[in-house]
Amino acid sequence: MKYPGGIIQKDAPKNVSYDNRGMDLENDINQSNEYYRDKNIAFIYKKPTPIQITKVDYNKRGAVIKEAYFKEPSTTDYNGLYRGKYIDFEAKETLSKTSFPLSNIHKHQILHLKNMYLNGGIAFLIVRFVKLNKTFILLGQDLISFIESNSRKSIPLDYFLEKAYLIEEKYIPRLDYLKVIDELYGGELNGK
Amino acid sequence: MKYPGGIIQKDAPKNVSYDNRGMDLENDINQSNEYYRDKNIAFIYKKPTPIQITKVDYNKRGAVIKEAYFKEPSTTDYNGLYRGKYIDFEAKETLSKTSFPLSNIHKHQILHLKNMYLNGGIAFLIVRFVKLNKTFILLGQDLISFIESNSRKSIPLDYFLEKAYLIEEKYIPRLDYLKVIDELYGGELNGK
Repeated sequence: MKYPGGIIQKDAPKNVSYDNRGMDLENDINQSNEYYRDKNIAFIYKKPTPIQITKVDYNKRGAVIKEAYFKEPSTTDYNGLYRGKYIDFEAKETLSKTSFPLSNIHKHQILHLKNMYLNGGIAFLIVRFVKLNKTFILLGQDLISFIESNSRKSIPLDYFLEKAYLIEEKYIPRLDYLKVIDELYGGELNGK
Repeated sequence: MKYPGGIIQKDAPKNVSYDNRGMDLENDINQSNEYYRDKNIAFIYKKPTPIQITKVDYNKRGAVIKEAYFKEPSTTDYNGLYRGKYIDFEAKETLSKTSFPLSNIHKHQILHLKNMYLNGGIAFLIVRFVKLNKTFILLGQDLISFIESNSRKSIPLDYFLEKAYLIEEKYIPRLDYLKVIDELYGGELNGK
């Protein structure tokens, strides 16, 4: 694992060029993934929400689910393929200005991220500190390293500033997170 | 792409060691994926069924979905990570003894499989000819090659016998499809 020092950015982008109303992290990621797919850059999808269906009716238009329950996800929300590499991540927002509460991620999602990088995938968290207007990539390795060496229930912002990578926010793609992946893993990725 | 001739098996496994009742292809794959995960071999999951939720009620036990509709999947059902490689496939059964109807797969799933192998993933179909008791891996490349050079609406069994790879069925894992992937892609996979 290489950590090119130049990528660690400690300054927030002060001016974001779009209006923030209704543009949450999930929308930004979905729009970016759509852009990556349209441009044939990467094929990364959000998994459907897992549900347990308990009742289905059939009418003229087809099947209608009449009762179902949300299930706890067993993996992360996003995965896909980028230049020959398996990509896997979870995305979370926090309103805290000082730390990211680990209660935001399920234990089996953390284990999943660990399995992913141990098996040759690129695994990370995307964490947005909403009130700071900063969105970071924290690599799975650094997430696990924090958890395994700390009893804290949240990851302080300082840890992000030290270990994570700031994602550039712009008009399109809104959240160019693969740029960070390029800089970190460029040598391992298939040529374009 | 290598096609080791030795892998093309033209004989069906005549005796299957388990009782077939209620064991359909999806169950076999899910059980195999569970085995692979338990043994830390591969991390391949079935994606949740995509649905459009239109009505949710909240009661003491939490949220209950009261109305939802099945959506057409935009990708394949299964993907994951195996020894550093991105794996992506769709699984289908057919009752036909002579051909696999292409109407079984959505157009955008076919395009998706093409995007996957073009971008360095391992993409394939698992097709079970139920009445023949044979389950094949047909690589995405060979699927697309057939579609692009044929106007036929189904792939004849002969094409499977010539181009596809028979998956060994056994007690555990029920459908050892990664064995075929090992034989085909061994040199590209991360060491165990």
